[in-house]
Amino acid sequence: MSNLHASIEFKVPEPTLRRLPWYLAYAQLVLKDGEVYLSSTQIAKNIAVDASMVAKDLSYVNIAGKTRVGYDVKELVDILEAFLGFTNSHRAFLFGVGNLGGALLHDNGLEQFGLEIAAGFDVKYELSGTSINRIPIHHIDRFTELQKQTGINIGILTVPVDKAQMVSEIMIAGGIQAIWNFTPFRIRVPENVIVQNTSIYAHLAVMFNRLSVIKECENCKKNKTRI
Amino acid sequence: MSNLHASIEFKVPEPTLRRLPWYLAYAQLVLKDGEVYLSSTQIAKNIAVDASMVAKDLSYVNIAGKTRVGYDVKELVDILEAFLGFTNSHRAFLFGVGNLGGALLHDNGLEQFGLEIAAGFDVKYELSGTSINRIPIHHIDRFTELQKQTGINIGILTVPVDKAQMVSEIMIAGGIQAIWNFTPFRIRVPENVIVQNTSIYAHLAVMFNRLSVIKECENCKKNKTRI
Repeated sequence: MSNLHASIEFKVPEPTLRRLPWYLAYAQLVLKDGEVYLSSTQIAKNIAVDASMVAKDLSYVNIAGKTRVGYDVKELVDILEAFLGFTNSHRAFLFGVGNLGGALLHDNGLEQFGLEIAAGFDVKYELSGTSINRIPIHHIDRFTELQKQTGINIGILTVPVDKAQMVSEIMIAGGIQAIWNFTPFRIRVPENVIVQNTSIYAHLAVMFNRLSVIKECENCKKNKTRI
Repeated sequence: MSNLHASIEFKVPEPTLRRLPWYLAYAQLVLKDGEVYLSSTQIAKNIAVDASMVAKDLSYVNIAGKTRVGYDVKELVDILEAFLGFTNSHRAFLFGVGNLGGALLHDNGLEQFGLEIAAGFDVKYELSGTSINRIPIHHIDRFTELQKQTGINIGILTVPVDKAQMVSEIMIAGGIQAIWNFTPFRIRVPENVIVQNTSIYAHLAVMFNRLSVIKECENCKKNKTRI
């Protein structure tokens, strides 16, 4: 989010916004189990994070806990869902109906988190007029027209790496204000455009590396201590 | 990655491992354009990160640049791909063939990054014997048997939040050593199990929040400065 206008102040830090959904997920679980109250200490203990961090993160959310018992679980779930924007419906366009783009169109789970993909765009003419999971696919040439009709300002970027910069420029020129970038390419955007990078493949690199280190370690430690 | 055995030292920091794929993506692009050399300064400038960070990150990779001209692009691409584990084939099982799980099974892009999903598991009996994108789906009861046959030690976790802990325990008991956790639930695992959390929905929360702040800011600044 470094590419944002310096004059805009974001009250809630990005790490907090990324952690709040963990607390929400745990609170939903506790609610399902029929519990009435939940303390930040309990949350911290159960999801293995620091209790003071949970309390600090929750201080950004307008919810008051009761001394000794903690938060009303139902209230906590409702307030967190609303705070995180999961209860509002945000409509988005998806750009690049390839492997990952097509996969995201299949993911109905996004709607539970407030994101509805209204349409997909691609340069391939043979995809125009088709649909995936009942979401229509159009040729990218129709984007500006459909953006004007709908006012949609969120764009999901799932094009190949070598098209990422060019397509993001088309998106911005056509009215997209927030880009959810799934490509491993670091797009350059004007200061007033929001970019959220979600490069799932980069996470794979971390996992592969850790796994190979663990394996080496197991070999070197064989017959000594088991890890 | 905090849940790893304290005695294991990871030479390459996680942030570096997450950034190297950005450099790889850019190098692939430059290679496609027919360039022969690429410097860390050039990478830094084009993907808007700090040049000294690029140089530091690349120092973990065994590649030598030439003074003034930089790295041989082809060599950089090959070495980075191998270093990140994208050229090896890693086989994985997927647990939870719901919305996101089904979507990931559709994503052939994973194979380009070295991950092949060998099978999906679910508790729903009606899914057993079916397949998605030619990947077979089995009942979870068959996991231990198939793990023994294949030795697969990577598991992708895409079950509902309230099943995340229980299913991760089944995975670990059956031989999974690395869990790619797509749920927003923070699973608790033994120290020798690797967890990589990729909660794509948490990224949505950041994007929604930033977008609403920008909107407020636009309203308050209207007729003053355009952001």
